[in-house]
Amino acid sequence: MEIKIMKNVLDRNKNKANEVRALLKEKEVLMVNMISSPGAGKTTLLEKTLGHLKSKFKIAVIEGDIATDRDAQRLKNHGVPIVVINTEGGCHLDSHSISKVLPEFDLDNLDVIFVENVGNLVCPSHFDLGETFKLALVSTTEGDDKPIKYPMLFREAKVILLNKIDLIEYTNFNKASFHIDLNNVNGKVPLFEISCTKNTGMEKWFDWIVTQIISK
Amino acid sequence: MEIKIMKNVLDRNKNKANEVRALLKEKEVLMVNMISSPGAGKTTLLEKTLGHLKSKFKIAVIEGDIATDRDAQRLKNHGVPIVVINTEGGCHLDSHSISKVLPEFDLDNLDVIFVENVGNLVCPSHFDLGETFKLALVSTTEGDDKPIKYPMLFREAKVILLNKIDLIEYTNFNKASFHIDLNNVNGKVPLFEISCTKNTGMEKWFDWIVTQIISK
Repeated sequence: MEIKIMKNVLDRNKNKANEVRALLKEKEVLMVNMISSPGAGKTTLLEKTLGHLKSKFKIAVIEGDIATDRDAQRLKNHGVPIVVINTEGGCHLDSHSISKVLPEFDLDNLDVIFVENVGNLVCPSHFDLGETFKLALVSTTEGDDKPIKYPMLFREAKVILLNKIDLIEYTNFNKASFHIDLNNVNGKVPLFEISCTKNTGMEKWFDWIVTQIISK
Repeated sequence: MEIKIMKNVLDRNKNKANEVRALLKEKEVLMVNMISSPGAGKTTLLEKTLGHLKSKFKIAVIEGDIATDRDAQRLKNHGVPIVVINTEGGCHLDSHSISKVLPEFDLDNLDVIFVENVGNLVCPSHFDLGETFKLALVSTTEGDDKPIKYPMLFREAKVILLNKIDLIEYTNFNKASFHIDLNNVNGKVPLFEISCTKNTGMEKWFDWIVTQIISK
């Protein structure tokens, strides 16, 4: 019975996600669904990415958080429109909550929406938000076994960022194991090794996301 | 309607959890529900804790994972009974899955069961497994804002371990902010600063968990 209920929830979510996707396509807005563990660096990635892109493109941000608006506070100096969705305990965003907040933005005058999902490698992978694509962020300090232990996200992501590359020498992260596992889950996905705090490897990521926005 | 369904799921989970708790109490077995983000160090904490405790106490492990038995493989050299629960995409363990695997152990001949929950700061906090208490593990590389952003776990935990203390100097982790936020969520919880890989601060944790096992 619970499986049937879950199927209904996912079906309703999928229908609304398809509505969101059709609207964004019509308005030529790219939407990136950013998924990672808590503390992998989503907000810092956003800070750096907004800093680089905001003079070139019109950007908005949706911040998904269980509680608080701390992440939005970190981003507000960039002067882009930000809407916070507090899930009040919920472990992921869904397409209905995205659909409800889209009218807050001037979609005719926007190039890209970054959605920072709730910090969670599991549940956000199951819920289509209507995004153009999912971005998976993983950090070296989490260990090299994440792609094989949490395969759904890494299978679905269109791009993977390996953050905190500056800390790799202090960990037992094995790059060869990471690549083998990732290749087993998703062999063709582009992977960028970055350090958001040290500004390492960011140019290649910026180039890639710019290409996505231009070709949307 | 979804709220009602969720209430039913949680009610059924709670009932079974109370059965599990009554059984463990009768058998004088302590059960620790270990919860953290992916890659915070639950398995390494278990490796070190089993190494210290296994000559003194009879221990068993339940490994909750979405996929693979990698964590169990890392622990098998310790020679304690281990059961793996693969949730096949599920984001948390529940009391029904725990109840089903308990017959695999000789409860009359056991002091403590460590349950390594699925790597997730959110969902495992909502599901009582029938544990004696919840342990929250958080690492310095995740940032200092986790207690306030994921309050439920930190409110419910009977003990908190701050891992990867050896890496704190390479991060922007602010201890004062962490303590202020934690104090707002749960002012009285014991907190141990440790590095499982560098064996820093482990003795105080070992002393604390030994006291819990002895006084069960």
